[in-house]
Amino acid sequence: MLLEAIHHQPKSQYAYAYDEETLHIRVRTKRGDMDQVSVVWGDKYDFTPETITTSKMEVFAKDTLFDYYHVEIKPPFRRFAYAFKFEKGKKTVFLNEVGFKEDEMHSSGVGMLWSPSGMFEFPFLNPIDVHTPPEWVKDAVFYQIFPERFANGDPTLNPPGTEAWTPDAVPTRENFFGGDLQGVIDNLDYLEELGINCIYFTPFFEAYSNHKYDTIDYLKVDPQFGDEKKAKELVEKAHERGIRIMLDAVFNHSGYYFPPFQDVLKHGEKSRFADWFHVKEFPLQTDPLTYDTFGFVPAMPKLDTENPEVKAYLLEVARYWVEDIGVDGWRLDVANEVDHRFWREFRDTVKRANPEAYILGEIWHNSLAWLQGDQFDAVMNYPVTNSILDFFVKDEIDAENFMGRLDQMMIAYPKQANEVAFNLLDSHDTPRLLHIADGNKDRMKLAAMFQLLYLGAPCIYYGDEIGMDGGGDPGCRKPMIWEKDHQDHELFDFYKKLIQLRKDHRALRDGSFRFLSASKGAKYISFERTHGKDRFIIAMNTDTKQHDVNVEDVAKGKFRNIDTGDTYTVKNGKFAVSVPALGAVILKEE
Amino acid sequence: MLLEAIHHQPKSQYAYAYDEETLHIRVRTKRGDMDQVSVVWGDKYDFTPETITTSKMEVFAKDTLFDYYHVEIKPPFRRFAYAFKFEKGKKTVFLNEVGFKEDEMHSSGVGMLWSPSGMFEFPFLNPIDVHTPPEWVKDAVFYQIFPERFANGDPTLNPPGTEAWTPDAVPTRENFFGGDLQGVIDNLDYLEELGINCIYFTPFFEAYSNHKYDTIDYLKVDPQFGDEKKAKELVEKAHERGIRIMLDAVFNHSGYYFPPFQDVLKHGEKSRFADWFHVKEFPLQTDPLTYDTFGFVPAMPKLDTENPEVKAYLLEVARYWVEDIGVDGWRLDVANEVDHRFWREFRDTVKRANPEAYILGEIWHNSLAWLQGDQFDAVMNYPVTNSILDFFVKDEIDAENFMGRLDQMMIAYPKQANEVAFNLLDSHDTPRLLHIADGNKDRMKLAAMFQLLYLGAPCIYYGDEIGMDGGGDPGCRKPMIWEKDHQDHELFDFYKKLIQLRKDHRALRDGSFRFLSASKGAKYISFERTHGKDRFIIAMNTDTKQHDVNVEDVAKGKFRNIDTGDTYTVKNGKFAVSVPALGAVILKEE
Ligand SMILES: [Ca+2]
Ligand SMILES: [Ca+2]
Repeated sequence: MLLEAIHHQPKSQYAYAYDEETLHIRVRTKRGDMDQVSVVWGDKYDFTPETITTSKMEVFAKDTLFDYYHVEIKPPFRRFAYAFKFEKGKKTVFLNEVGFKEDEMHSSGVGMLWSPSGMFEFPFLNPIDVHTPPEWVKDAVFYQIFPERFANGDPTLNPPGTEAWTPDAVPTRENFFGGDLQGVIDNLDYLEELGINCIYFTPFFEAYSNHKYDTIDYLKVDPQFGDEKKAKELVEKAHERGIRIMLDAVFNHSGYYFPPFQDVLKHGEKSRFADWFHVKEFPLQTDPLTYDTFGFVPAMPKLDTENPEVKAYLLEVARYWVEDIGVDGWRLDVANEVDHRFWREFRDTVKRANPEAYILGEIWHNSLAWLQGDQFDAVMNYPVTNSILDFFVKDEIDAENFMGRLDQMMIAYPKQANEVAFNLLDSHDTPRLLHIADGNKDRMKLAAMFQLLYLGAPCIYYGDEIGMDGGGDPGCRKPMIWEKDHQDHELFDFYKKLIQLRKDHRALRDGSFRFLSASKGAKYISFERTHGKDRFIIAMNTDTKQHDVNVEDVAKGKFRNIDTGDTYTVKNGKFAVSVPALGAVILKEE
Repeated sequence: MLLEAIHHQPKSQYAYAYDEETLHIRVRTKRGDMDQVSVVWGDKYDFTPETITTSKMEVFAKDTLFDYYHVEIKPPFRRFAYAFKFEKGKKTVFLNEVGFKEDEMHSSGVGMLWSPSGMFEFPFLNPIDVHTPPEWVKDAVFYQIFPERFANGDPTLNPPGTEAWTPDAVPTRENFFGGDLQGVIDNLDYLEELGINCIYFTPFFEAYSNHKYDTIDYLKVDPQFGDEKKAKELVEKAHERGIRIMLDAVFNHSGYYFPPFQDVLKHGEKSRFADWFHVKEFPLQTDPLTYDTFGFVPAMPKLDTENPEVKAYLLEVARYWVEDIGVDGWRLDVANEVDHRFWREFRDTVKRANPEAYILGEIWHNSLAWLQGDQFDAVMNYPVTNSILDFFVKDEIDAENFMGRLDQMMIAYPKQANEVAFNLLDSHDTPRLLHIADGNKDRMKLAAMFQLLYLGAPCIYYGDEIGMDGGGDPGCRKPMIWEKDHQDHELFDFYKKLIQLRKDHRALRDGSFRFLSASKGAKYISFERTHGKDRFIIAMNTDTKQHDVNVEDVAKGKFRNIDTGDTYTVKNGKFAVSVPALGAVILKEE
């Protein structure tokens, strides 16, 4: 046994409450090292050889180095003490808080009353601390709209110098095409046909630029897009069709033309807004910068969210759009650069306005510190984005590495955060998927298929579904192509069909996920998704030649290819399926 | 290199803000595995080969399996991206968020703007999130008083049936001896002479039992102890002598005679306090229990701290004693069974009343989840208690194991939490130290010496310093012995001298701590404590025979034994010091 590989941390993503009565306990070992791993547990005030239980754990994720074990326990008094038992051949090792010991559990020092000394503890499951994201997100398929570029429904609002909305229009950092909220309302039929049920809007509040991340007034719709009445109309008409709306909260920084910042520019330290920003030295200067900004962008001064006035202002913004306008969630821009205390109050404010609102952090990195139940429901799942791109699109990693990187996300957060993770493949911040795939539509489709059949809520960037192309900003921000003969209808149907499949089967939404094959050096994978009696096995091949994929370690059953009708029967826990070059096979249990 | 042994978690005790400009970055490796470990870092929005810095890390803690590396970094823009570089012989391996890679850093997918893809990140150091315990605790020496048993200063308050306060009095679970607040005031001279500067009182609020953990009225001093005026007098007289006061907040559960609980007993679900507790079924019954309790104790019903009314009541209690009476801290009973949200609001309330108040959780286990800056300043450091007892008193573990268990606490929490940890050796909940040592005063003194010379705030349980004895509750709760000829004066002087030494030298309070010798199988250790030019080396021997302790890996210097005056000079980074059986040598650099 490699003791150095074993890892557990109490009260973390390795030991947390999944709901008001269930604890999830996890432990890491070297990959393939153990015959059996168990949790030995009992009530913390009644932990004796007679009262303890041994619960076997299962491997639920693995990577190149490690196996990750998991077990679900419902302790009768919502509290428990525990240790781990590792078995390999004739060797048995226990781990508790004091450390490793062969054949028996450590005790140490002077224990507390009836409680054993040295056990790990989950001291008490208080419902208010449980991380409970809104259920509806498990069923959500998002569609991201960049409002200036989706549809122009009201030419009277067009800003001066608006350019022509043509299929070959060229976006620049500065130009405008006249997209607006009426344009979105006019095209709800289109979105409903595609099958999406939640729109994520990048900002539509009053701002200077075309991307609107440089807010002037957080309580006002930008006049080029419409007004608050129009926003409310949009929300209501979307809701009528079962489509929810998520807005973009840019609270890390304001725009240059945000009146409080203008006031500080003008009056310096005498401004009544002087402490709304992080000013190192007055007067404000841009070179060298005398105030904190987003990145090194002078036009995006960082707001001081520790200042109670700033906080009160932004929290009122958060409340207003949810309670008065009726939006269903907030995506939080640059979420990890704002203080944790702000986000805790933000959560309280938003959930008070609507307990079912979705709070989604924009974090490109490990986000455990925000996913404990007190801050965000979930984060934009960039580590999964990158893994999908590296495997299916860029052909840079093998199947084992792909599995490892995805499974690491399974252990990175509590399960409920992964169930509502926001899985995107591209956005207004990155090149478009088809561009990353160098125009290879097969690779693009493999990536999208995996995204749509994986755990977490998928998000489609507007226009991807009709074959829009474009590199990083500004290339990825072309006006939506509405001319039918410029749209890729085959691709649209591909997205539509997969979205429908996901909607039809809970197994493909919040069912369990498990890799069945993902070998070192291989360019193909298979995985299983299960919910109750609903079970799918999907095999995908990123190689440029056909492969027979051996599906292993599967419970018995008979599967049918949903496209061809071919059937497969599990024998001795396995079967083989031929998967075409750059193709995939979706099998459903009969 | 054993990759399986390497561990890092962003935004955790492995990567945190120590103050408003300093980050601490840590990583774990297999013990003795690496030649060199470094952090490679740069601004997250300007991370290029030209702008990155490589900072060497140092081993700051170790145990039987692992080395723990540490480095302090002050990123100019309070944010950074980083990776680790491991070197061994000719091999170099990098670790970032994507994983391990030889000779170069991984990148993956599509990065964000100027930011590198796949690096670890400390996204932004927001001052309000920094864990900042009160500075004074670093200088504190606590003295724990169980009010019923310290001194009887006002016989008119004695409860009916009060027993005689004699050196051979026998405490039971039920009897009373008449201790009170006046008794403490009368003996402040004594405490000042001993040298302590903070009193930790177990509860003195109105309650039924002699231990007062079954509260009846949280806003009232128990009439047997005095009243609120007397409490205020005590606080003021203590403050005049530089002695602070910490009270015991029993907020997990109330007493059986707490009026709201009595109301629920009487009126069942019609009581207006029906939802102040965790009632599973009305009417209340004790067998089987139909309501949640502390442990399985029917007389201690668990309070529902999620209920806004309960919360408001308890927060007012927290505020009142700090703001109106002037106490300096709260010790939180059964702290880990109360919800995290309650403790966050508790912290805000208490720190608003007095930003310098100390918030100390009673947790016997790993407490990382409470020590991130939003809840407690520190916890009762039972893992250190147990390690000291196992090594010095019970002779159950060797020096290497002792070092490992102590050093694991160094990596378990952010440094600032360890600097103000509450280090006790015994209490009203455990047998007395002399009892655990089976009457062996030499072992008791070794344990106390280590406690008084270690990082964190030591606490002496009343009477230990004059040789009081007694097993677990009720044995450890004898009335304080005031008769001079029944007191151990040599022991008192031993404590007094060590407390003075600690007070005289910052190195012994919040200086760095490092084991110099702690070998497998050995019964002796040595360690170094340093602050600026103030440096001590202490060698301690738990064996029943003399040992020459080899002190190794020491910076050059000349040391003097503070008792004998013998001098020692470092040669080639080492020297040897003879330490008597069950004895210790304290060396101070000249
Ligand atoms: Ca328009
Ligand atoms: Ca009395």
